[in-house]
Amino acid sequence: MTQCAILAFVINRVPFVDKIRQGWEVRQSLLCVGLDPDLKRLPERYSERVNRKDEGLLTFCHDIVDATADRVCAFKPQVAYFAARGLESQLADLIAYVHQHHADVPVILDAKRGDIGDTAKLYAIEAFERYDADAVTVNPYLGAESISPYLDYPDRGVIVLCRTSNPGSAWLQQYPEQGEPVYLRVARAAAEWNGNGNVMLVAGATYPEQLGAIRRLVGDMPLLVPGVGTQGGDLEAVLRAGVDSRGQGLIINASRSVLYADPDSPAQGAASAAEALRVEINRLLAEICPQRASV
Amino acid sequence: MTQCAILAFVINRVPFVDKIRQGWEVRQSLLCVGLDPDLKRLPERYSERVNRKDEGLLTFCHDIVDATADRVCAFKPQVAYFAARGLESQLADLIAYVHQHHADVPVILDAKRGDIGDTAKLYAIEAFERYDADAVTVNPYLGAESISPYLDYPDRGVIVLCRTSNPGSAWLQQYPEQGEPVYLRVARAAAEWNGNGNVMLVAGATYPEQLGAIRRLVGDMPLLVPGVGTQGGDLEAVLRAGVDSRGQGLIINASRSVLYADPDSPAQGAASAAEALRVEINRLLAEICPQRASV
Repeated sequence: MTQCAILAFVINRVPFVDKIRQGWEVRQSLLCVGLDPDLKRLPERYSERVNRKDEGLLTFCHDIVDATADRVCAFKPQVAYFAARGLESQLADLIAYVHQHHADVPVILDAKRGDIGDTAKLYAIEAFERYDADAVTVNPYLGAESISPYLDYPDRGVIVLCRTSNPGSAWLQQYPEQGEPVYLRVARAAAEWNGNGNVMLVAGATYPEQLGAIRRLVGDMPLLVPGVGTQGGDLEAVLRAGVDSRGQGLIINASRSVLYADPDSPAQGAASAAEALRVEINRLLAEICPQRASV
Repeated sequence: MTQCAILAFVINRVPFVDKIRQGWEVRQSLLCVGLDPDLKRLPERYSERVNRKDEGLLTFCHDIVDATADRVCAFKPQVAYFAARGLESQLADLIAYVHQHHADVPVILDAKRGDIGDTAKLYAIEAFERYDADAVTVNPYLGAESISPYLDYPDRGVIVLCRTSNPGSAWLQQYPEQGEPVYLRVARAAAEWNGNGNVMLVAGATYPEQLGAIRRLVGDMPLLVPGVGTQGGDLEAVLRAGVDSRGQGLIINASRSVLYADPDSPAQGAASAAEALRVEINRLLAEICPQRASV
């Protein structure tokens, strides 16, 4: 980077948390659209172009982004969909596209990395410098050393796996049955790591009771909530258990139910599905926290 | 892949566990060399060439591999060193180089991935198809769903983080103090997941007592042991606590202490450092398990 570029990098960056709050308030949306471009489900008009440097896949993502950007608080590309096929440069292009065309919408890189020492620093560089993501998901199994290199970027978000949405996770995350379970131990640590105000947690929609326990422990810390839509999480239960003191605080992710809503008209289908979810969330919020209307 | 290629892929693959045992027995080595090519520490003769498509970095790795292949049971490239700088194709080239020139030496991809469902399948594809690694490290925080896609490749190794070498990991891995700690819960689950005999565990050299507890729980399951060398793990304590019933069972990783042993003569330095470690391990093994000499 040139000195000018570094200066711009340091000065102009709107912190992730501020971008998220802006999405909640200006676009009135707690919805995050997960960008998981599954080649097997790619609508025909895009899959025809997949063999030519995969531009079909990237165009699909651009169209989904353009169709839904006004209706979301964040986008969340999933690294594995790109990495399995060697499409890292397309992932970088996609994130750059969001920054360029929808600068207000932050990008959460769903990487779930977890390592220590120099290796953790390199994964932070991968997420925040190479891909220029606004936030990244990380795994807490290796402890504080695996989180701290990300915290050194105070304008970026660090979203720690806490209580994930899959049934097999209780085995470890809700262990032990007596005493504080692992997921709450992680939530408590995350609150301690939060000196820069940029730490958040993943709390699956499929476990609203545990989501509520996390909320009670971490105050108004934003929570990323996967598991609504295809995975069957109950939206109303999530909102009742999870909203913060201002009737916000949640980044509710939907991927497949938005991306593949209408294979014949993918962009329009995604826009409609995202808008329906956004409106439904706001309708429920108006019931649950009537004072929120004044925000 | 063509049908012939698929057939060759299915028929000719020597399972990871067999390759490891071959290294232990034929090359008489429990040593694994970690390939963590740190640009800041790259010897001058290679760093001069780094700006030309990074061939300097790749040549450095090739030279280390050639110098140490006869002295190791495995190589372990660390993904982050490549990913932070967009060098995925160099990582793929490096693994292909090991397969081509040292076909008996298996490659462990140190990726520590952890995700669920379709995403976990894609990470398995990344490790085993895109990179063609013989084994991969994975994170257990999300439970069985995050491990099972890897198990579908019975000829590959799945190495689950259990008790890692860093001090901050006790906070979660040795929790709770009363009852079975998390790391032993993971070890117990790994033994259950091991229907194909291809599951292994990471047990840090810095915690030989816990390494011993893992060994008692999982029988002769191979253990990958980081933390010898720069991190200060006690080799004798590791061997006493960790060897299996045949005086083997360990994949003892050293990275920096081998890679950067002699900046003026990197390949020769690496060969000497690796050989010294191999010999020291075998000297200690002869003391600890005298019956092993007959293997």
